[in-house]
Amino acid sequence: MNGASSLVRTLLASGVDTCFANPGTSEMHFVAALDQIPGMRCVLGLQENVVTGMADGYWRIAGKPACTLLHCGPGLANGLANLHDARRAGSGIVNIVGDQATWHRPFDPPLTADTEGWARGVSAWVRTSLRAQDVGRDVAAAVQAAHSGNGGIATLVLPSDASWDEGGAVAVPLPNPLPAAPDGIAVENAARMLRNGRPTLLLLAGAAVQADGQALAWNIAQATGASLMADYVNGHVARGRGRLQLERVPYVTDLAIAALAKYEQIVLVGARPPVNFFAYPGKPSTQYAPGAQLHVLSRPDQDTLAALRALADALGARHAAIPDPGPQPEAATGAPTPEKLAQTVAALMPEHAIVSDESVSYGRGFYRHTYAAAAHDWLHLAGGAIGQGLPLATGAAIAADGKRRVISLQADGSAMYSLQALWTQARERLPCTTILLNNRSYNILVGEYKAVGATPGDTARRMLDLGDPALDWVRLAGGMGVEAARATSMEECAQLMKRSFQQDGPFLIDLVV
Amino acid sequence: MNGASSLVRTLLASGVDTCFANPGTSEMHFVAALDQIPGMRCVLGLQENVVTGMADGYWRIAGKPACTLLHCGPGLANGLANLHDARRAGSGIVNIVGDQATWHRPFDPPLTADTEGWARGVSAWVRTSLRAQDVGRDVAAAVQAAHSGNGGIATLVLPSDASWDEGGAVAVPLPNPLPAAPDGIAVENAARMLRNGRPTLLLLAGAAVQADGQALAWNIAQATGASLMADYVNGHVARGRGRLQLERVPYVTDLAIAALAKYEQIVLVGARPPVNFFAYPGKPSTQYAPGAQLHVLSRPDQDTLAALRALADALGARHAAIPDPGPQPEAATGAPTPEKLAQTVAALMPEHAIVSDESVSYGRGFYRHTYAAAAHDWLHLAGGAIGQGLPLATGAAIAADGKRRVISLQADGSAMYSLQALWTQARERLPCTTILLNNRSYNILVGEYKAVGATPGDTARRMLDLGDPALDWVRLAGGMGVEAARATSMEECAQLMKRSFQQDGPFLIDLVV
Repeated sequence: MNGASSLVRTLLASGVDTCFANPGTSEMHFVAALDQIPGMRCVLGLQENVVTGMADGYWRIAGKPACTLLHCGPGLANGLANLHDARRAGSGIVNIVGDQATWHRPFDPPLTADTEGWARGVSAWVRTSLRAQDVGRDVAAAVQAAHSGNGGIATLVLPSDASWDEGGAVAVPLPNPLPAAPDGIAVENAARMLRNGRPTLLLLAGAAVQADGQALAWNIAQATGASLMADYVNGHVARGRGRLQLERVPYVTDLAIAALAKYEQIVLVGARPPVNFFAYPGKPSTQYAPGAQLHVLSRPDQDTLAALRALADALGARHAAIPDPGPQPEAATGAPTPEKLAQTVAALMPEHAIVSDESVSYGRGFYRHTYAAAAHDWLHLAGGAIGQGLPLATGAAIAADGKRRVISLQADGSAMYSLQALWTQARERLPCTTILLNNRSYNILVGEYKAVGATPGDTARRMLDLGDPALDWVRLAGGMGVEAARATSMEECAQLMKRSFQQDGPFLIDLVV
Repeated sequence: MNGASSLVRTLLASGVDTCFANPGTSEMHFVAALDQIPGMRCVLGLQENVVTGMADGYWRIAGKPACTLLHCGPGLANGLANLHDARRAGSGIVNIVGDQATWHRPFDPPLTADTEGWARGVSAWVRTSLRAQDVGRDVAAAVQAAHSGNGGIATLVLPSDASWDEGGAVAVPLPNPLPAAPDGIAVENAARMLRNGRPTLLLLAGAAVQADGQALAWNIAQATGASLMADYVNGHVARGRGRLQLERVPYVTDLAIAALAKYEQIVLVGARPPVNFFAYPGKPSTQYAPGAQLHVLSRPDQDTLAALRALADALGARHAAIPDPGPQPEAATGAPTPEKLAQTVAALMPEHAIVSDESVSYGRGFYRHTYAAAAHDWLHLAGGAIGQGLPLATGAAIAADGKRRVISLQADGSAMYSLQALWTQARERLPCTTILLNNRSYNILVGEYKAVGATPGDTARRMLDLGDPALDWVRLAGGMGVEAARATSMEECAQLMKRSFQQDGPFLIDLVV
């Protein structure tokens, strides 16, 4: 058995059965092994940031890692930005990066690069398999690493000779490590804080914003009078009917500071201390009140659900019903606005839909208008590297095996980063509906530029504007085999949404906003 | 004066007057400085690999560096693959990467990444400006570094507070360093080898494949009977009428070994020892005969032209006329083939055209059919990271200020990596003609897969095939504002080429091959 075969067989034995791929010459033996050994679903992406973004979306919905197949250092480099986002979202991924043969690398052929060096910035685990004999053992360790700490990125570099040489051996899968147990003293201290009567916020992230975590947090809040809020940086939030009407910490610095000002105590439940996305002259880095006391109930790598359970027990918190969000909104009419779009999505989305939200500046108010939607999962851009939304949606649809509607709320500037994902949606006939928010600009930057205090002249305008020439998203989608149509009113948008929800394949709505 | 203003003024004073940009929030003060200080041409790219690829193309034609404007670590990461290619081509680039404010970085906000770490794999020079006072001095050093060693990549990380704080000072430009002088003993030894009567090859790269270098090399070859060949890895070769009919070392291992087998001596003139692009089981890494003696006349960072001049003097080589390549070919007819396409390009290309060649497997034989074309510059994919061709063409057109026709010979799979470059071509109304070689597959990999010895099954085929769904390049180009049409015969292709050569803006020919 060659190294490549031991790789594929060990991945399958370890529960990894989906491979997002963009192969090159040095991966041909790996491709041959994928071809000859049944069981791995292989999904082609036409650029590597699509590949890694799909793997991120897959983890968030499947709750287990997929592997990627990338070509040498530059192939990995093309996928780093979405790996950065995946790392910030806490997603588990097993990257397999083919590379120069061990004995060829010293000659420094043109495609040689510092593959391990580039991998380190996003990976919790990096290893190069130097011999076919090691490949099985190494990839079993990579899968274990991807499960560790509630999800991490493991990168295995696979020189081509380790792939084609004989001597490969299938490794016994390693046990999936449990997240670190909650800290008893941290639970006791949190309970004490929640009983002292001071204004207290439970800031939720990770498992705490999934359905079970929300239910426990709600019991605690009802028992103690504490407030609940979701961290701005969350990869995946359970939302809609039956889930909490949970606000996020706002993106905009002044709004975030205002929202957190009243809390003298903040208990971090899988969340990190809230800080600004960017610095601004004369503004603080942190968003909480200067005197506020922060307390870590559960780190992101710990078992947050167990911590919430222990805290509820310590407080004697009883079951409290999740409040009803009121009637489902109706689809809106007239000219598109952020509020109307959110209402319309809430009105029309089918049960158990998945929302991939890369709406950037347009979507900052979407949350409050979608509490009464059918139960759904909402996926966020956790790391701020744009170009994630379409690949994420694609991978999420693969994870749901085509059985759940995926809705992308997608800014145009960000969509252009990784539009190639539309082709994979067409090829795999995925139930993906993209609502392309076409404002013909990097609108977030128009706002940020004004914050600098200057009036944009020609040069600045042309660096923030996407309108010359205008991007024609109906043609771009069509060029990749995705059916598409333009909407200029909410009525048209709603009609196209309904139509797309009834068909199997992907659809793009070019919503002029 | 804030740091950003000192940055822009120092760049201009140092001769950098073109900025390829994809800005983000942390670069808004830099954008404001670019807006307020006249003199910098700013060109927007809709993804960072387009930005860095444009800067590479700019250097190759302008012979001086442009700067890039990139957003934080992930923005740099998106542009690494084309920086890898630029490094292999020996191009000089000044990257300016905006980043978190120095005092905000310790809070590790979501977009924080190891910017310097990622930069190191492609950069000859990396520095972070920690204070506004240092920015001018640091960027002057960056420009100098970009000129060093015949061109290198300098990356300056610019925290947002170093950009907005007052205290910036315009730095005096640093002298452009001359390339290292040729080594007298290396020249003497080369002269001795060229006189000993053994079969000798001068392997040419860098300045040796430009017009002046070719003329000197030809004089030496005529005086000594040595053969001349261009390195496979060359960023930029002067070609066509008045230049040498210079073959490249072939890409395919067996052909390269056959082409080099007869040479007992190889003199490296700006070139590196010829090695395979990839390793294959049972094949050697090097392409020259096992007993061949290699001799370095001039390293890539040395003054290769001076070395050739010294060698010609040492040999008493006289001026020899460059041979006439015979009559210009006529445009071909019938079904497209690689040979016919090359002939047609040679027949129709205007004087001083620039060819950006990312034809990959389709274009391996283009050279021999284009010797009798009008004088032109041919740009190659030197680092093997695909997705370079369209950005390179775009940057080359900017460098030529719209005065030279740029022809992209562009494989479809590679084009999909960075198709966003077409939008910049439309926005800047550049005279770029893309001949899109539409074979609906990663055809190089189909060949490489066969070399593995296996027959592709469904899984392998689907990982090498781009035909389901077919990419419609006329719609893709049109969606970005680039006029396009399909050609299925050489007559149609020739007609569209002629038409595009007569108009100012970009045009894409979807050539079904």
